[in-house]
Amino acid sequence: MTECSITFWPQNKTVRVKKGSSLLEAAYKANITINNVCGGDGICGRCKMIVKSGNISGEVSGRLTREEIKGGYVLACSTFAVSDLDIEIPKETWASEKVVADEDAVRFRNLKLIPYRKNYAPSPLVRKVYLKLDPPSLANNTADHERVCDEIRRRLNVNSMQMGLKIIKALPQVLRENDYCITATVGLRRDIAEIMTIEGGDTSDTNYMAVVDMGTTTIVAHLVDANTLNTVDAEACFNSQWVYGREVTARMIAAEKRGCEDLQRHLVEDINQLIRNLARANKINLKDINAVVAAGNTAMGHFLLGLPIENIRRRPYVPTSVEPPPLRAAEVGIQINPRGLLYSLPGISGWVGSDITAGILATEIYEKDEICLLVDIGTNGEIVMGNKDWLVACSASAGPALEGASVECGMRAETGAIESVYTKNGTIYFDTIGSGKAKGLCGSGIIDLVSVLLEQKIINRSGKFNENGSDRIQTVDGIKRFVLVDKNDSATKASVFINETDIENVIVAKAAIFAAMKIILERLNLKFSDIRHLYIAGAFGNYLDIEHAINIGLIPDLPRDRIEFVGNTSIAGAKIAAFYQEAFYKIAEIRKNTTHYDLMGADDYIEEFQKAMFLPHTDIEQFHTTGV
Amino acid sequence: MTECSITFWPQNKTVRVKKGSSLLEAAYKANITINNVCGGDGICGRCKMIVKSGNISGEVSGRLTREEIKGGYVLACSTFAVSDLDIEIPKETWASEKVVADEDAVRFRNLKLIPYRKNYAPSPLVRKVYLKLDPPSLANNTADHERVCDEIRRRLNVNSMQMGLKIIKALPQVLRENDYCITATVGLRRDIAEIMTIEGGDTSDTNYMAVVDMGTTTIVAHLVDANTLNTVDAEACFNSQWVYGREVTARMIAAEKRGCEDLQRHLVEDINQLIRNLARANKINLKDINAVVAAGNTAMGHFLLGLPIENIRRRPYVPTSVEPPPLRAAEVGIQINPRGLLYSLPGISGWVGSDITAGILATEIYEKDEICLLVDIGTNGEIVMGNKDWLVACSASAGPALEGASVECGMRAETGAIESVYTKNGTIYFDTIGSGKAKGLCGSGIIDLVSVLLEQKIINRSGKFNENGSDRIQTVDGIKRFVLVDKNDSATKASVFINETDIENVIVAKAAIFAAMKIILERLNLKFSDIRHLYIAGAFGNYLDIEHAINIGLIPDLPRDRIEFVGNTSIAGAKIAAFYQEAFYKIAEIRKNTTHYDLMGADDYIEEFQKAMFLPHTDIEQFHTTGV
Repeated sequence: MTECSITFWPQNKTVRVKKGSSLLEAAYKANITINNVCGGDGICGRCKMIVKSGNISGEVSGRLTREEIKGGYVLACSTFAVSDLDIEIPKETWASEKVVADEDAVRFRNLKLIPYRKNYAPSPLVRKVYLKLDPPSLANNTADHERVCDEIRRRLNVNSMQMGLKIIKALPQVLRENDYCITATVGLRRDIAEIMTIEGGDTSDTNYMAVVDMGTTTIVAHLVDANTLNTVDAEACFNSQWVYGREVTARMIAAEKRGCEDLQRHLVEDINQLIRNLARANKINLKDINAVVAAGNTAMGHFLLGLPIENIRRRPYVPTSVEPPPLRAAEVGIQINPRGLLYSLPGISGWVGSDITAGILATEIYEKDEICLLVDIGTNGEIVMGNKDWLVACSASAGPALEGASVECGMRAETGAIESVYTKNGTIYFDTIGSGKAKGLCGSGIIDLVSVLLEQKIINRSGKFNENGSDRIQTVDGIKRFVLVDKNDSATKASVFINETDIENVIVAKAAIFAAMKIILERLNLKFSDIRHLYIAGAFGNYLDIEHAINIGLIPDLPRDRIEFVGNTSIAGAKIAAFYQEAFYKIAEIRKNTTHYDLMGADDYIEEFQKAMFLPHTDIEQFHTTGV
Repeated sequence: MTECSITFWPQNKTVRVKKGSSLLEAAYKANITINNVCGGDGICGRCKMIVKSGNISGEVSGRLTREEIKGGYVLACSTFAVSDLDIEIPKETWASEKVVADEDAVRFRNLKLIPYRKNYAPSPLVRKVYLKLDPPSLANNTADHERVCDEIRRRLNVNSMQMGLKIIKALPQVLRENDYCITATVGLRRDIAEIMTIEGGDTSDTNYMAVVDMGTTTIVAHLVDANTLNTVDAEACFNSQWVYGREVTARMIAAEKRGCEDLQRHLVEDINQLIRNLARANKINLKDINAVVAAGNTAMGHFLLGLPIENIRRRPYVPTSVEPPPLRAAEVGIQINPRGLLYSLPGISGWVGSDITAGILATEIYEKDEICLLVDIGTNGEIVMGNKDWLVACSASAGPALEGASVECGMRAETGAIESVYTKNGTIYFDTIGSGKAKGLCGSGIIDLVSVLLEQKIINRSGKFNENGSDRIQTVDGIKRFVLVDKNDSATKASVFINETDIENVIVAKAAIFAAMKIILERLNLKFSDIRHLYIAGAFGNYLDIEHAINIGLIPDLPRDRIEFVGNTSIAGAKIAAFYQEAFYKIAEIRKNTTHYDLMGADDYIEEFQKAMFLPHTDIEQFHTTGV
């Protein structure tokens, strides 16, 4: 594999990358953090760079102005190195002045981009094919239905096909009115290709899918183009089931009491709202969205379909279904193409859902020789350990603190959220998404802040404020808080702070996850040092300061080159499954080959949890490389 | 293969048959015609015989009284020879005194019974499986849906499965309320096994299907037990679409003018009525009928599903679908199990339907080395020629005369129908179905009567009455008629007759069919003498006097050992497809391998038709063995 040298200016940093690497990857490798909200999908248009010399490939982005393009501007995420390059990073692209200036502070903000594109041929779950059929003649008077099916069979290399009665009835007219030139939308249902719609003429250029990650706290939807496999846009919202409880268990109890219809309606309406917004913003007709591919924890999967949920939380913890069949999306109330399909990715058990099988798919743990550990940090912390030979998964109830919820000033990773907090010469700085005034703290900001407070000895190892630790400590209603942003400096005219209850929620969350990792390791007679790849996943946006996460004891103190922050692997895996039928089938295989370990049956889990209720841990030796 | 000698008394006739042959087959072989309405399905209970010596096998029939069983009575159709036998045929079993006494008259009434049972394992299109599942435990807490699917997959050896959302939702309750003992009804939909219903406990003993032959004139339904593969009962009715025209073309025009909904409703209501009657008579719940397997001409197939039909009758004669997918029967209004399936057997073209592919399946022409000819005599006469290497099919519009319609005193083959007419010492005799007073003439009776009138020189070769041919000739409204039954002797107090218009309709029908055979032969450079097996199929009931059919020129004058009357092969083939999934798939293969020859494009067809408009034919040499 040929390599290229890429030098970034004004930093004057040179890295060697594989030919074909994106400039964004190269910048990450050079430890230069740049503005980038969309995760490298070419949507946000923030990762502008200027090519000063050398050859590049990649499409010209519509996010750039004509003047910018003339001036050599490109988007780093969708521009690829063909030769050695000299690249200028304009000031507006810097994540913030301070961050770029202070290399240490950003050293471990290395988001590894999950490649959505695979080497095999694209085969999205729903495809559109334009058919120019031969008009019938005496020599070939095959019936309309068989004429269409035979051609689709030939083109898509599928065997078994199904077409609904309504579509068959409409075929003679649509064929004859369009000179036998039609577009078929074909969706995969188990081993059958279902002809979902037939339209006159060539409409094959409009084929979209919505890929959804249904978290307990946050729901993320990506609108993807099934033809180009590009992500058109992304949007997220808090899960409005929130009113029934912050934890999944509380919502299960609510569903038992009042039936699951209310919880289903909330979830479906959230998804509909996200899809509507994405469609409107991108001028796409809802009827051209032909599928929803959904991943999420098993409870969310049940709520989405309205499945009985009461046996999940009772021994022996039996879900109704972890591998439901593809359904018509309209059957659960999702508003896309009325005949569009809803694919629920297969999960593993009542407590390890399809967000995790998607993560296994995205990180490719199931193909690795070495032992890997995937930690997906959400309201439930899920842990997968294994390699190509074996996989074990478990789930720990962490609470939503690390997603910016159950923290008083917490918020989702969106404009105005403090996504990073760090110190320089003893002074505490922060960055907000969008670089404007702060509105609150998102997950990564909360982790950073707790770590910084610990480093600065403003809080102690129990998460309590030290007497006289800082002049920014206030007591309100008897609870101590640290005020990071004064109300006069905030976007909301209310101060942004973290209090002792918030910090306790953070400690509980990280302790639950860390204890789960320890238990799994012990059961397998392994040590943390046996882990060659530690993948940290979660809906933190693009940033997670690994050093801070280790500081607070959220993740183990491993050699840093073994740790990768991989972002939202639930969305990434769901997208791969949406784009490649092989990958979709692979998930079902992963499901079958993954053993679920039930922490609720582990007597020593509570003990490990208690040990982890300190910052970073009672056993400080496990965190010897940290500065705290 | 061991043989047995069977001697019938009082006839004192001995035949040698294969061990395991039924007594009914043996009686046919001995040229003894016996009472038998159901075609050998053990339904009608008329073929009673008394075993005087020797060993038999076969179940005891519920159609026999305790006294009869004690006296050695058996049903010939369901009793099989194990050793040499002496069998007494009681008088009530004789088809009629005269017939049995006069061997010549019955010589060619050899209905060949199509065996429904094949050597491979039964695999009906819809199966019921009783599952005793392990209750979940911590060691095995597989989800409910996957627990059920895994077990069905194992039991039925299927890969791909589908279960509707409603059934998945109901699973947790039905499993827990029934100690994990449930019955699944599983229907084949293309390559997918659909779990149609889940019931608590073991209901696997009630699984029925309705097998339907949709003729232009007659609709026949058989109720079959999918567990035992036995036929429970059979019923037929005239097609009430009749009001829109006697020929399919007239009904197509009606459908174009008024939409096909009316024609669909008539057909579906006929089928519903037959199924209701069958269910009521046999004390079977409609919800336990899990599938309808339907064969018929392509127009009927379109009417059943409500498919647009207008292109079938216009060049280039394109149907909407000849291989529609399995549908939910309720979708077209058929009233069985609400989730029951409707299987339309695959047909070949707009004018050669699934009644013919079913016939090819039933006669096994597609496996024969020698050249075979299948003639299915209905309102359309369909002809298939070929063997295991090639198959050619065509269709000729014959009109309904040979089904007992478009003949003034015509009727369906049911009680009171004259099904056979013959002469003895110059006197004309007839037999009615049920041996009671005559109501009218069914198809076989009409053929017989025309042949007898020709033999007796009452009509000439053009089908016109000879002056003074008989004192039974009357003229009513200017049209001459031959009165077979005086009004005082009939069941209806109206005379049973045939007039010159009726005879002309019969001649048109037989000429259309004979001309079609000639054209196909010519195109393939074959002669009638190349045909080694001539299969005559049609809804004539159990009798067709082959000699009479040759006399009038309906079928060619071949050596009689090459000719077999095989009854309703549409029902027979549909039943085989219903019982064996392999056979169902085989029909789709037959469809693809059969070439449709379009008679409408044959310039010389009219010429051949004109030549055949005589009795038996202008070219009398073709019928040199006939007595006329």
